[in-house]
Amino acid sequence: MSATAELKSSGLEGMIAGKTAICAVNQTSLIYRGYEIADLAENATFEEVAFLLLVGHKPSESELKAFSKELASQRAIPGAVIDYLRTAGPWLKSGSAVPMDVLRTAVSMLGNMDPNSQAVSPEADLEKAKTLTAQIPTIIGHMQNVIDGREIVKPDESLSHAANLLYMITGEKPSDEHARVIDVSLILYAEHDYNASTFSSRVIAATLSDIHGAVTGAIAALKGPLHGGANEAAMEMLREIRSDIGKDNDPKKIQDWMHQAFADKRKLMGFGHRVYKNGDHRAGILHKLGRQLAEKATDDSLAWFELGEEVQKIMETEKNIYPNVDFPCGLTYFTMGIPVPQYTPIFVAARITGWAAHIIEQHANNRLIRPIAEYVGPELKKWNDG
Amino acid sequence: MSATAELKSSGLEGMIAGKTAICAVNQTSLIYRGYEIADLAENATFEEVAFLLLVGHKPSESELKAFSKELASQRAIPGAVIDYLRTAGPWLKSGSAVPMDVLRTAVSMLGNMDPNSQAVSPEADLEKAKTLTAQIPTIIGHMQNVIDGREIVKPDESLSHAANLLYMITGEKPSDEHARVIDVSLILYAEHDYNASTFSSRVIAATLSDIHGAVTGAIAALKGPLHGGANEAAMEMLREIRSDIGKDNDPKKIQDWMHQAFADKRKLMGFGHRVYKNGDHRAGILHKLGRQLAEKATDDSLAWFELGEEVQKIMETEKNIYPNVDFPCGLTYFTMGIPVPQYTPIFVAARITGWAAHIIEQHANNRLIRPIAEYVGPELKKWNDG
Repeated sequence: MSATAELKSSGLEGMIAGKTAICAVNQTSLIYRGYEIADLAENATFEEVAFLLLVGHKPSESELKAFSKELASQRAIPGAVIDYLRTAGPWLKSGSAVPMDVLRTAVSMLGNMDPNSQAVSPEADLEKAKTLTAQIPTIIGHMQNVIDGREIVKPDESLSHAANLLYMITGEKPSDEHARVIDVSLILYAEHDYNASTFSSRVIAATLSDIHGAVTGAIAALKGPLHGGANEAAMEMLREIRSDIGKDNDPKKIQDWMHQAFADKRKLMGFGHRVYKNGDHRAGILHKLGRQLAEKATDDSLAWFELGEEVQKIMETEKNIYPNVDFPCGLTYFTMGIPVPQYTPIFVAARITGWAAHIIEQHANNRLIRPIAEYVGPELKKWNDG
Repeated sequence: MSATAELKSSGLEGMIAGKTAICAVNQTSLIYRGYEIADLAENATFEEVAFLLLVGHKPSESELKAFSKELASQRAIPGAVIDYLRTAGPWLKSGSAVPMDVLRTAVSMLGNMDPNSQAVSPEADLEKAKTLTAQIPTIIGHMQNVIDGREIVKPDESLSHAANLLYMITGEKPSDEHARVIDVSLILYAEHDYNASTFSSRVIAATLSDIHGAVTGAIAALKGPLHGGANEAAMEMLREIRSDIGKDNDPKKIQDWMHQAFADKRKLMGFGHRVYKNGDHRAGILHKLGRQLAEKATDDSLAWFELGEEVQKIMETEKNIYPNVDFPCGLTYFTMGIPVPQYTPIFVAARITGWAAHIIEQHANNRLIRPIAEYVGPELKKWNDG
């Protein structure tokens, strides 16, 4: 292979960087350890999918019971992290930090306090992965409580993982339908092979660094608007369109707005995907569920979905670019009243299971991930020659 | 290119993952933006090299003066980060955190407080890179002060970057010779193309995430003993040898120890390199300087160097494996009385300039870094089929 041949694919597009038994992403399907995503979204719970990803097989009834109980019992976070979240309140208000930044720091701090933090092995990783999976929703919930200036809502062990996440954010126990929709969104977001954040976590783990460090780096990667940050950015774009053209979803005005965006060569968030060229298998699943909630809502959620659908139609017919899962996710979480800056943190609450599965897999058969670069800098010269 | 062909090089070994104008690493030379590493180690200061890497050219006299002043004036860190370092004291004592973990959290927290934290552009990156370069030694120094239970040693603007770093750690102004040796070690550690931590920082930055996040992830990667953590691990290995065979450096006992390690297929730290097959250009430079310090020392530093040289000789003659820069670095920092768990944080204090240069370069011409994986997991099956 010549260097030129390799560099034809910038950003490692289409390049196989390694093997995995966790996930297959391709044009016709998305598979988690042998199960198709639509099957899981229809028939499994997030707890079942988390077990599948982390442990490697579908849990038996007793395995699932023990696993769910273990997760639920580990939700509380140490007082030092709660203190930090309170300290971060003014930073979140001033905009010097967004929730993804605070989540990154909080997870790093959890690592500082874990008595098992320095152990690097698949077995130790699994234990820490379960704790992190249990604790991340609590960080998100408490952080939102701090932002809202309300009392910290303690986790409720009687609720499922997804229902408890919504409960801690809002202080209200969600309906079964809301709990199920967020549960499915977590299943859809849980894993996606060598995406940028997962790949970051594998590069970090491959130095034989620890899982908290690898997850901290992955959170930093997921924040970017070209990755997980797209679910917030997609919703912000819809807000901008409505602010520009008004609430009546006039198709002509939407089309004009889009044509202007095309003319400005603006990147429209929530569309396109590095791997999927004919659409993201997850998008339709979540769109359908989110729209069902919007149809029953008493506010103008449905109008937001209709705006999104119009934008989507124009992207598909004029640009042949399809929405990815972040587009319906933004609309769905908006319908559920979740504050926009928490959309990507909720993505973390799901993807932690995929990241951890990859870190475990990396540590189980490790080799340093260290590519080389083509030097295109100045010719050799002497420092003292001027 | 077939998938099989690509996977022959696991860990992306020898694979060109992108271009860079910052650094060329090859068997015959190590070049930072056109200048050879031995030339820089002989003739430049860390401040000059930091400017070269971050800005892209050798600084003029007035540019250097302004840059050095800017770095020196920005060394103080916010009270909230100092409070965090005090909170982390017991975690460092208990071993649930090592200094690299605390540095990772502190840098993440600095990002939370930077009013410019959300700006993602080469210009904004450069400003934040200078601040981070100035502040990282302060985090390290204050952290060591907390560990030692002494008063916080405030940065001294009259000292060079390297001398101030040593001063903050120890509370004593270093001799010119000590200051110069640590200065050279920072030059040697400043940059190394697509090493694992730099590559992590580029993968994170390529999602259009911010520089504090990318650096936080890079710190997590550098911690690993297959990467920056090797300078601590190398010194710990020498301590273990001495503890096993005594202080007299008996060549026969050293050889027996090494042969046992070979028989145990033990990985000996500070030796070998993914890219360098005939030795690391930096190792000899630092070994010579460190040994000169050891020769003048009144303690048994020279005996440690002699032990290291014996180990090195056996590795070279019996295994044809050469020391990398981490091997003499461990011995050199040990000679200077720096606590072992701060060796990798000091590596960070140097490499921050290389990471930042790569993040700036990535953001200047960005494309998402997102490879694919070969799926080797189970065949497709149905969730409800048992």
